[in-house]
Amino acid sequence: MEKFSLSKISTRAPKKADKETFKAKTARLLEQLDELQYLLYAERKHALLVILQGMDAGGKDGAIRHVFGKLNPQGVQVQSFKVPTSEELEHDFLWRIHRYTPAKGMIRIFNRSHYEDVLVTRVHKLISDKTAHQRMEDINHFEKLLQHNGTHILKFYLHISKEEQAERLQERIDDPRKQWKYNANDFKERQRWHDYLGYYETVFERCGPDIPWTIVPADQNWYKEYVIARTVYDTLKKLHMRYPGLKG
Amino acid sequence: MEKFSLSKISTRAPKKADKETFKAKTARLLEQLDELQYLLYAERKHALLVILQGMDAGGKDGAIRHVFGKLNPQGVQVQSFKVPTSEELEHDFLWRIHRYTPAKGMIRIFNRSHYEDVLVTRVHKLISDKTAHQRMEDINHFEKLLQHNGTHILKFYLHISKEEQAERLQERIDDPRKQWKYNANDFKERQRWHDYLGYYETVFERCGPDIPWTIVPADQNWYKEYVIARTVYDTLKKLHMRYPGLKG
Repeated sequence: MEKFSLSKISTRAPKKADKETFKAKTARLLEQLDELQYLLYAERKHALLVILQGMDAGGKDGAIRHVFGKLNPQGVQVQSFKVPTSEELEHDFLWRIHRYTPAKGMIRIFNRSHYEDVLVTRVHKLISDKTAHQRMEDINHFEKLLQHNGTHILKFYLHISKEEQAERLQERIDDPRKQWKYNANDFKERQRWHDYLGYYETVFERCGPDIPWTIVPADQNWYKEYVIARTVYDTLKKLHMRYPGLKG
Repeated sequence: MEKFSLSKISTRAPKKADKETFKAKTARLLEQLDELQYLLYAERKHALLVILQGMDAGGKDGAIRHVFGKLNPQGVQVQSFKVPTSEELEHDFLWRIHRYTPAKGMIRIFNRSHYEDVLVTRVHKLISDKTAHQRMEDINHFEKLLQHNGTHILKFYLHISKEEQAERLQERIDDPRKQWKYNANDFKERQRWHDYLGYYETVFERCGPDIPWTIVPADQNWYKEYVIARTVYDTLKKLHMRYPGLKG
């Protein structure tokens, strides 16, 4: 089998995909998702964990706003993971993650996740290869535990080109409405682009087959939103959920 | 290999063991433990998780008081696990456990633990065998995660005879200083003695070899305290801890 390579996967929508058509499709999916989420919440048998990963400016915040922002906030919670605190670093790397996993009936969005602990940490050589491999094994076990409890896990990699990233980072300098997002460090991290890709590929390989990753072509926001909405919809639809009847 | 059976293991100290001699040994061990704990706390490389399981009136509270009560409370924390709350039940069974795992440098005592989720729940047929087997697999993975992070796990089963339990439960009725511990339910659970033993044996078998259980003969408190103190001492001693030097 040929080795999986991110650079061979397009960051753009298929050529024949039409923006307006897909925007309409997404809108329809979101309406149906609203109903499915209500059912998820009422039935309280399943939970959904959505993991969003990607390069800086990959469009994670936008995806949260435009896809999950349409759902009932009572049943959707977002958790962003930043650099761990010193208290968090004194525990295993999944300790801080576990407390934010979704309760039954809930959708939890992870804006970055435990995968950073085998990505940014490897790019900056903060952990050894051995530790990284142990952690990926730990991640597989951990996700299995969540599955055992009825949590469905969707893992999205927002796939943008290096050129698209350059444009978006530049906008954070030029556009006064985006300047709050500017971080000089993003330009430094950009120089490690190739390292990040390589470590992402390892993650897809080792933490992949059982709970697969969706590689989302993300240069165009309208297509990215469609792919995510579609994947979430298909997942919830397959659960064959029902409203619980009267109790007792 | 002959099947492991708890009923073949004595609940009493070896015949030649002398109470006063062992009490003196324990006192000496506790002095040395005090020093080792200080080192654990200063070095902050390792953590110790002590799991105490056993039948009702098996002597868990006494072990905590007489062994760990001698250590510096700054570095020792006890967590008791009761019947899960409804919030806890909406997550996987390790969710509530994970947040109480010890930070580096710390000793955490679990008074009952995640093992209840494959013991009392099985005795009362609250979960299927399949779920129980999944959970034991999850437990092994979870404990491995903690080990990867430098947490050493000691699992103690406080082994008492059914006759000794009867005496202790009766004391909770007769002795005004112990009446606060009386719970009518303990007498009901006592009728399931054999079921509990069977499920404990399964636990020792499936969640055993890598991180072994210590079966503590616990009819006599002085011997129980000695075995626990000795095991904790031996574990910490083997870590070859050192005081960290000046930083930077």
